[in-house]
Amino acid sequence: MAARKPGVRALVFDVFGTVVDWRSSIIREGKALGRRKRLRVDWVAFADAWRDGYQPAMARVRSGELGWTKIDDLHRMILDGLLKKSSIRGLTEPEIDHLNRAWHRLRPWPDARRGLVLLKRDYVIATLSNGNLALLTNMAKNAGLPWDCILSAEVFRHYKPDPQAYLGAADALGFAPAEVMMVAAHKSDLRAAKACGLKTAFVRRPREHGPNVRVDLSADRAFDFNADDFVDLARQMRKKTR
Amino acid sequence: MAARKPGVRALVFDVFGTVVDWRSSIIREGKALGRRKRLRVDWVAFADAWRDGYQPAMARVRSGELGWTKIDDLHRMILDGLLKKSSIRGLTEPEIDHLNRAWHRLRPWPDARRGLVLLKRDYVIATLSNGNLALLTNMAKNAGLPWDCILSAEVFRHYKPDPQAYLGAADALGFAPAEVMMVAAHKSDLRAAKACGLKTAFVRRPREHGPNVRVDLSADRAFDFNADDFVDLARQMRKKTR
Repeated sequence: MAARKPGVRALVFDVFGTVVDWRSSIIREGKALGRRKRLRVDWVAFADAWRDGYQPAMARVRSGELGWTKIDDLHRMILDGLLKKSSIRGLTEPEIDHLNRAWHRLRPWPDARRGLVLLKRDYVIATLSNGNLALLTNMAKNAGLPWDCILSAEVFRHYKPDPQAYLGAADALGFAPAEVMMVAAHKSDLRAAKACGLKTAFVRRPREHGPNVRVDLSADRAFDFNADDFVDLARQMRKKTR
Repeated sequence: MAARKPGVRALVFDVFGTVVDWRSSIIREGKALGRRKRLRVDWVAFADAWRDGYQPAMARVRSGELGWTKIDDLHRMILDGLLKKSSIRGLTEPEIDHLNRAWHRLRPWPDARRGLVLLKRDYVIATLSNGNLALLTNMAKNAGLPWDCILSAEVFRHYKPDPQAYLGAADALGFAPAEVMMVAAHKSDLRAAKACGLKTAFVRRPREHGPNVRVDLSADRAFDFNADDFVDLARQMRKKTR
């Protein structure tokens, strides 16, 4: 391969929390189902509990206790447990399946679409999510997210923050790690990407966990960018490369 | 998973020859390079020879003689041989790399973009190409191809017509094989997809191999659709499902 001038060529995005507001989307879908089926459920707690099951479920895959398992199936395992624990009965299999696919219908943060359109002019933009390909594809189609490519832990058979996910994404896009920038609202994701040689952009999402949970929004000079949203990131990147 | 009504939900597309006109694109890039570097080369024969090296190169991967190798690298191996054989000298490494990436810049057939936009309204549309992810991503970005998802043999580590590619694509998109339709200008590709349970659409591309090579354009009732181009396919599919 020819030596190329260093510089960012592609941006890869964390999705849950960074691009889409998973929490209010899940709460909204739960409430709608609850009204339809006359269920008495605290859907706010339900959404948080569902998401809380996510890291432990991936840890079971990472440890080898479970073979490779897609997020759709991990979401379903957690959901089945939650339905039982919450004594939610009377849902048909298609209704449970539809609820599980609420993650395919998550809504983007208000700036996300516009910011991605701006960034897409100058860079290859791709997902790099632990969500599976079908989930990310359906989400993009529903929400109008203009990805150039959909990359997922599923392609690399390793969940973030395993290095294989970050290095695999750079390799798949045909760039050196230093030519790829990870964009995320979660500093742990960025630190793992940085350890693999990727550039990093922190995007503040103060409401990811709802109005009552404070998240660390402080700028960190270890990252290449600290931005308020995707439009701000596009503006900062244009300024820097001009 | 919930039982779903059968019917096509996603279309997966062969790319080289079906979506893009590889031959005239490669000839055009070759000629431009030849003028710039004052090379005396028959670029028509060069393009055909480059493409002729493609199936044998994949066969070496399929047989295990080569480990998994991306098409970019197979293209480069073939190109290096051709440059030597054609006594083309005086190209720098960046020039050879740029020529190799001509496959990232292939131009779509005139109907392709419009047809994909129409089909995208009703179906998930994805590539299913032996081309690697970077190649397909750059091609889509260059040519404005509005894929919902880019799938490649690279994801499944199996080149078409290995069944793992077709079954892997259906699984990745979250559909049963019978819910996915392979769209291709090559009957062998469609027959392999059909053997895996996918639906099939044959699209005639009479000029794929240039004006002097006749290709089999006959309709085959074994396929679910036989179409003149992507716009015609969209029209036929709308008619059938109305």
